[in-house]
Amino acid sequence: MGLDLNSDLGEGFGAWSMGDDAAMLDIVTSANIACGFHAGDPSILRRTCSLAVEKGVRIGAHIGYRDLAGFGRRALAVAPAELRDETLYQIGALDGFARAAGDRVRYVKPHGALYHAAAAQPALADAVVAGLREYDSALVLLGPAGTHLQESAALAGIRFVSEGFADRAYTATGGLTPRETPGAVLDADMALAQAVTLAETGTARVAGGGTVTVSPDSICVHGDTPAAVEMARRIRAALDDAGIAVASFT
Amino acid sequence: MGLDLNSDLGEGFGAWSMGDDAAMLDIVTSANIACGFHAGDPSILRRTCSLAVEKGVRIGAHIGYRDLAGFGRRALAVAPAELRDETLYQIGALDGFARAAGDRVRYVKPHGALYHAAAAQPALADAVVAGLREYDSALVLLGPAGTHLQESAALAGIRFVSEGFADRAYTATGGLTPRETPGAVLDADMALAQAVTLAETGTARVAGGGTVTVSPDSICVHGDTPAAVEMARRIRAALDDAGIAVASFT
Amino acid sequence: MGLDLNSDLGEGFGAWSMGDDAAMLDIVTSANIACGFHAGDPSILRRTCSLAVEKGVRIGAHIGYRDLAGFGRRALAVAPAELRDETLYQIGALDGFARAAGDRVRYVKPHGALYHAAAAQPALADAVVAGLREYDSALVLLGPAGTHLQESAALAGIRFVSEGFADRAYTATGGLTPRETPGAVLDADMALAQAVTLAETGTARVAGGGTVTVSPDSICVHGDTPAAVEMARRIRAALDDAGIAVASFT
Amino acid sequence: MGLDLNSDLGEGFGAWSMGDDAAMLDIVTSANIACGFHAGDPSILRRTCSLAVEKGVRIGAHIGYRDLAGFGRRALAVAPAELRDETLYQIGALDGFARAAGDRVRYVKPHGALYHAAAAQPALADAVVAGLREYDSALVLLGPAGTHLQESAALAGIRFVSEGFADRAYTATGGLTPRETPGAVLDADMALAQAVTLAETGTARVAGGGTVTVSPDSICVHGDTPAAVEMARRIRAALDDAGIAVASFT
Repeated sequence: MGLDLNSDLGEGFGAWSMGDDAAMLDIVTSANIACGFHAGDPSILRRTCSLAVEKGVRIGAHIGYRDLAGFGRRALAVAPAELRDETLYQIGALDGFARAAGDRVRYVKPHGALYHAAAAQPALADAVVAGLREYDSALVLLGPAGTHLQESAALAGIRFVSEGFADRAYTATGGLTPRETPGAVLDADMALAQAVTLAETGTARVAGGGTVTVSPDSICVHGDTPAAVEMARRIRAALDDAGIAVASFT
Repeated sequence: MGLDLNSDLGEGFGAWSMGDDAAMLDIVTSANIACGFHAGDPSILRRTCSLAVEKGVRIGAHIGYRDLAGFGRRALAVAPAELRDETLYQIGALDGFARAAGDRVRYVKPHGALYHAAAAQPALADAVVAGLREYDSALVLLGPAGTHLQESAALAGIRFVSEGFADRAYTATGGLTPRETPGAVLDADMALAQAVTLAETGTARVAGGGTVTVSPDSICVHGDTPAAVEMARRIRAALDDAGIAVASFT
Repeated sequence: MGLDLNSDLGEGFGAWSMGDDAAMLDIVTSANIACGFHAGDPSILRRTCSLAVEKGVRIGAHIGYRDLAGFGRRALAVAPAELRDETLYQIGALDGFARAAGDRVRYVKPHGALYHAAAAQPALADAVVAGLREYDSALVLLGPAGTHLQESAALAGIRFVSEGFADRAYTATGGLTPRETPGAVLDADMALAQAVTLAETGTARVAGGGTVTVSPDSICVHGDTPAAVEMARRIRAALDDAGIAVASFT
Repeated sequence: MGLDLNSDLGEGFGAWSMGDDAAMLDIVTSANIACGFHAGDPSILRRTCSLAVEKGVRIGAHIGYRDLAGFGRRALAVAPAELRDETLYQIGALDGFARAAGDRVRYVKPHGALYHAAAAQPALADAVVAGLREYDSALVLLGPAGTHLQESAALAGIRFVSEGFADRAYTATGGLTPRETPGAVLDADMALAQAVTLAETGTARVAGGGTVTVSPDSICVHGDTPAAVEMARRIRAALDDAGIAVASFT
């Protein structure tokens, strides 16, 4: 069994760009592509899907709140029924480009504030899963393990794939240590080491000491700054060097 | 062969509504459903698709310029490549709801300023047809006869369905008399008569005298005001009374 | 001392309209005019300001979250610094039209979800007050009494004007009974009576029995449906009949 | 009399940034600040205004079409009455921040497609000037000489300030050579030379040979790429070296 690397891509909008998608598509195996609600426009969707297919990277719908001004990072009280509709809309919109590029949307990952809200609130998790399932019950849900997203997927018979983070310390129960906590964000060397350890043993460092079993199917890496791209490249290289098969989960 | 009646539906946005979709879906056989660019939001898309399927009305993607503030009625210089992408995006987004409701998008009709621009400019007509074809070459294009939309569809092997108007006087060459011209907009009784004549003979009144052969496959009726809904109802009744089979073209 | 009547106006957007602004401007003395974030566009701002000035109604900036799709009714986690900026932006935008119409913005009232959030959270209340004060410290803040909005205004030396509701039952501490609670929303006759009682005695009915002192400076009436407009008209007439001076607070 | 240098600033939106505003504010004397329609959000408006005032740079309202997706670069058929309203809205919104920073909006410059449309169409030029004048008849209009913008300003008694370009070849009548024409865009050394010649003699190179009198009051420089910033810096240095007083026109 291999390990997947996923990253948020296609996050520009109109004249504005973000990150180096082409570089990241040489590193990751799954591309979470923004669908136009928090970032992305039709031409960016096409470009990102085409490049992903060309490089053999799987396409996922990175669904978000309808909030371009806040980049989907601000909590927004969307009603579950509306969230289900927004999920279906975004998957459908992206899938046209995935198919035009010769593949299709393989999975769904909530973005930003929606990621956290749907992990924590059953009604929102159910809404995301319902929208996903309505579109295609063969779609995979990518998200944080041990949350309502995982539970809703299980109840609906949808395959769930969990992700971990190389650069974040974990709590003893497998959650992420809040960013404010000292030691919550690992430095580059520690992140590299954690990526390999996660891949080889499924365990991660606990802030304050000890380890916890996380067993992620995928590791999320960032590409929004040159430094982040470089870090992602080093993580990929470290995994390759360690003989870990880096491959998409689908 | 029957005659189709089409109307623009699903044109609300958020808290704002427009027209009486439920009433119109009892009258028409084809629903041009806004896809979120000039009007419509995911919940409205769902609601309108569900109601259309329930009432046996065909679903079309009413694609428009990304201009909520202008309702898609203002000319916008979108580059052809971008228009193709926006076409694909909108069809895909709507099709998720059409399929969730048990049917699928059957046709595409450009809205407002895009309707006129794509009819007049080959590059834009080609862009609309290219986006449509990329999604599904079995989709039909609905638009004005004798324009670049028809020509682009023909060149691409896409079925084209032409529409006529009950309440507009025609020019001797089959175009619509500009609204500013006296007599360009017919009153209710004349519109009723023209609907039946178009259906029975394929000809329409020319402003200034005489008739022209138009032979529309579909007649476009409006539902944005109570008076418009009532007019559409009368047109449908007049066609039924005249023994004309009112049926979708697909 | 008179009593003010305020209402939310200018809530259309582009081709979409909401409510009957012209009718309401014959009834109320203060117009909360949407500034383009949750509703309203520049032409609607102009039209509403012009009509308000023509009818002698005071202009207030009805500031809201940047959420046209949700009409500003959905909680949105805007950071205080950003909220302050959005407050300043909206007041400035509206004031241009108020001045072009011959008056100026006289007060600020938060709309929808922002109304509730700023009432409950000191940092958001401070942000609204800071934006208001930066623009003009002579502006009045209109909102619910006994909340952080009132407190922030007091601390900043900004005049605060409290509003009450004719059609809502109050709690024993002067808050509104939650809508879900039986008896929370009063019927038309009770609302009429409450409007007069509020004006004459400053007290309101408590759900479950008894009364509470509210002493509002303004009563908020709605105009989004024909029934609401009719109700507002009856309230105005009842106040006039009771000999209560209906007049703006500024 | 000095020469002004102006540049388009504050062109980010939410999480997206564009250009190096801080660097450009050390180079130019007039800042065309986006007002939220084609770029810019309230927090960016505040930041850019504060920085401009801090560095002694004049603030201008860079008004644009309401088209974030197209960055205001696409022609959009806005009706004159609506354009006047959008002009007033944008000036008012920006002025709140300019005043909070201790100065005020001094001038207005149309952006992108609106720049070209208002230069070419009298009704649009009049609309821009009308919105400007409604806000404050002491505002200056910055734009291309010899166009309807200049004429409308003159008719309305509004001061007009013309701008030139260092890196563009001129036609024999003082217009810009279309970008497609060979030699239309000057290389860095030629642009440097042209900036100094424009400042010293008021004349510019004509594509194909000869010179034409342009006499700009301001030269527009770009800052959207590191290379553009460097070029702007060299132009400023060349003007300083040539002993030309670089100063705002207001």
